[in-house]
Amino acid sequence: MSLDNVLSRIDADLPNAIDRLLDLLRIQSISTDPAFKDQCSKAADWLVADLKTLGVDAEIRETPGHPMVVGHVDGDGPHVLFYGHYDVQPVDPLDLWNNDPFDPQIEDTAKGKVIRGRGSSDDKGQLMTFVEACRAWKAEHGKMPCRITFFFEGEEESGSPSLVPFLKENADDLKADLALICDTGLFESRVPAIITQLRGLLGEEMTITAANKDLHSGMFGGLAMNPIRVLCGILANLHDDTGRVQVPNFYDGVPELAPDIAEQWKALEFDHSTFLGDVGLSAPAGEQDRSPIEMIWSRPTADVNGIWGGYTGDGFKTVLPGQAHAKVSFRLVGTQDPHVIRKNFRAWVQAQLPSDVEVEFSGHGASQAGQMSTVHPAFEQARSVLGAEWGHEAAFAGCGGSIPVAGFFETLLGMDSMLVGWGKDDDQIHSPNEKYDVESFHKGIRSWARILDAINR
Amino acid sequence: MSLDNVLSRIDADLPNAIDRLLDLLRIQSISTDPAFKDQCSKAADWLVADLKTLGVDAEIRETPGHPMVVGHVDGDGPHVLFYGHYDVQPVDPLDLWNNDPFDPQIEDTAKGKVIRGRGSSDDKGQLMTFVEACRAWKAEHGKMPCRITFFFEGEEESGSPSLVPFLKENADDLKADLALICDTGLFESRVPAIITQLRGLLGEEMTITAANKDLHSGMFGGLAMNPIRVLCGILANLHDDTGRVQVPNFYDGVPELAPDIAEQWKALEFDHSTFLGDVGLSAPAGEQDRSPIEMIWSRPTADVNGIWGGYTGDGFKTVLPGQAHAKVSFRLVGTQDPHVIRKNFRAWVQAQLPSDVEVEFSGHGASQAGQMSTVHPAFEQARSVLGAEWGHEAAFAGCGGSIPVAGFFETLLGMDSMLVGWGKDDDQIHSPNEKYDVESFHKGIRSWARILDAINR
Repeated sequence: MSLDNVLSRIDADLPNAIDRLLDLLRIQSISTDPAFKDQCSKAADWLVADLKTLGVDAEIRETPGHPMVVGHVDGDGPHVLFYGHYDVQPVDPLDLWNNDPFDPQIEDTAKGKVIRGRGSSDDKGQLMTFVEACRAWKAEHGKMPCRITFFFEGEEESGSPSLVPFLKENADDLKADLALICDTGLFESRVPAIITQLRGLLGEEMTITAANKDLHSGMFGGLAMNPIRVLCGILANLHDDTGRVQVPNFYDGVPELAPDIAEQWKALEFDHSTFLGDVGLSAPAGEQDRSPIEMIWSRPTADVNGIWGGYTGDGFKTVLPGQAHAKVSFRLVGTQDPHVIRKNFRAWVQAQLPSDVEVEFSGHGASQAGQMSTVHPAFEQARSVLGAEWGHEAAFAGCGGSIPVAGFFETLLGMDSMLVGWGKDDDQIHSPNEKYDVESFHKGIRSWARILDAINR
Repeated sequence: MSLDNVLSRIDADLPNAIDRLLDLLRIQSISTDPAFKDQCSKAADWLVADLKTLGVDAEIRETPGHPMVVGHVDGDGPHVLFYGHYDVQPVDPLDLWNNDPFDPQIEDTAKGKVIRGRGSSDDKGQLMTFVEACRAWKAEHGKMPCRITFFFEGEEESGSPSLVPFLKENADDLKADLALICDTGLFESRVPAIITQLRGLLGEEMTITAANKDLHSGMFGGLAMNPIRVLCGILANLHDDTGRVQVPNFYDGVPELAPDIAEQWKALEFDHSTFLGDVGLSAPAGEQDRSPIEMIWSRPTADVNGIWGGYTGDGFKTVLPGQAHAKVSFRLVGTQDPHVIRKNFRAWVQAQLPSDVEVEFSGHGASQAGQMSTVHPAFEQARSVLGAEWGHEAAFAGCGGSIPVAGFFETLLGMDSMLVGWGKDDDQIHSPNEKYDVESFHKGIRSWARILDAINR
């Protein structure tokens, strides 16, 4: 059987595949920080060069931000577009990393071998599982399993500012029968999951200004308004006592879970005690009348992702600052409209300002939630073959994160997306000491070979 | 008249006095930041060397923190101790300075010449007014106007951790008939003010911990508690809607203003519109049933001096942080006990924590408010001569800041303190672009000569 031969090649070539991934992980492609612009270009160049070794007609496509990588290769069967992103999250706080985040290492752990380093799971390791599956297929068959468009983005971790214009301008070049997106994980680190429901994301940064300069808290304290006091008052109002978000009309468009989905999710027997226990927590902190799996998959949220103001260094400084700042994000579900929520949020903040105090906002991304169509035959084909690799039947699942590109593929290119990936809950993506299990990488490559084989039949 | 001769010498020597101050201002003696430890020692050495040129028997006295400078010189008349501090506040945010804070400059402004640089007003410029008055006196008379102990501290801006043990160990060496402290300002930048009422200060730093690491807000958002949410909720509760501090029993020991003091303060006709207007504000933000001058001089406060948590860099990071931090300080009046308030504050915070969330505290200083005795004849002597220098009769006034050393002189050395200084409201102490008017420096030196002359009579 030719699939068996491909799988054997994948097994034999694993050490080389890991070496290639480590090469890519050494590139410091932090997209949100302008200081790493050249490193982002370097990662894109690396991918173009690697795709060319597979006979892919790949090239850099410049954008106002970081470049896209686009590659085409012919083949029989359906035309799929594969999407991944080569950019990574910032690495701070750096002192919590046990090693240099960009000097990746293979480590032995109690749970097996892991690839440790920024981007190992999100998303360089994941995107390379697909590339490596194609490499093995090509080596075995001399050609690709089907017609493939490779599409790698470099701004996913910074709100994808160039994505929509690029998709619009290159719609004909990018449109395929189905998009494959590898940026998600296994359910409870063991069950292969095809994500059919994704939360949207709205980011807002706000600066509260009171005095026109920092003041001495002895001279002015008690008389001058402190912007940190104003900011904390507003942010404390984000949730009521039951965990419900208090921005007006926030819940417009939030659906109740469909009974069949509710049934499926219940069958997954989500173990929130372990999920929270792994990070030192125990109590579900969201809307108190919702189940834990709803809290992360199908309910909207508001979170402060960053706050700062006044003196934050060592020691003490009795400053009464002129400004205070926060970064706030909302996870969205159903048909919640990020642009309406942005408007409502800003008005809600404005209405809470005392006299003398002003606020300035800047937006960071605004994407609606996604509901995937599972009509394309590849969905059932993939689900039917993944069980053999992982020892668990695959599930159609939700995902608390936001993968806006899936929505844009639908609205701008009329293309459905299948989201499947091999990350584990303890990968510490976006955190210090990010890792990707060698098992995820190895079985991930094998899983793509199985999926491509199924699609190709 | 010998005072006239001294004043003439002061006028003639002003350029040299400014040059000496600029020398001292170039030393980066930021006491709160361990990186500047050597610079603090350098400032102390500079002062010892300068005092020696006046015939003062001066020396460095080591402490577990930054050194003290102590110098003695004989003379007729009463024995006074002069106190000032050579350490300065941190300079961040550095980008708001128009020049290097440690490359001081003389600038022409619409309101006259100013000495611009960190510490120019607080407190290097002020302490040098006394030293320069002594220099002129010595040059004219060949001796000092009275017996003087010079005592300069290097930890005033970082909670004075070594001060109390040092005063206890060196009580005999430091005790004088009266302390003179130059670390305050003119009332409304024009009326010479002898401060008889000072607020105390209590500093607390708190770290709120939820998860044991930073989390991805997509994966955990809605399920895991966000420590910034907890911190904001607590800090938003610090004040009620009327501006009253809500820590239990906070107002124990807060006195009503004595009728005679209330009468004096009313006569000062404090112009809070200008005071706030100069920094871009208009509305008194303290307890709404109190007058503006009470808010800054005789009422206690709570202020957040710093807050931080999560991602605070450029761009956006959808992190759900493990920790959030704040620095909080309380200005205290009357007989409010800082140690009791610290205990009550910590218990009050603890009681507001949801499950899974912990707090750690560290204290930064705890000093009671000060009420000066004005029995010593020097108070009336000083008040009677300052009018001639400034064109306004001097006032006994309050001060919103905290100068704990005055309280320690009283309790540990049994010595009253006279606090008088020449700073102006727009000196921007603790802020970017700190300055000291050349008028403050020049008339300040002349004022000390007048006071010493009056005491000496």
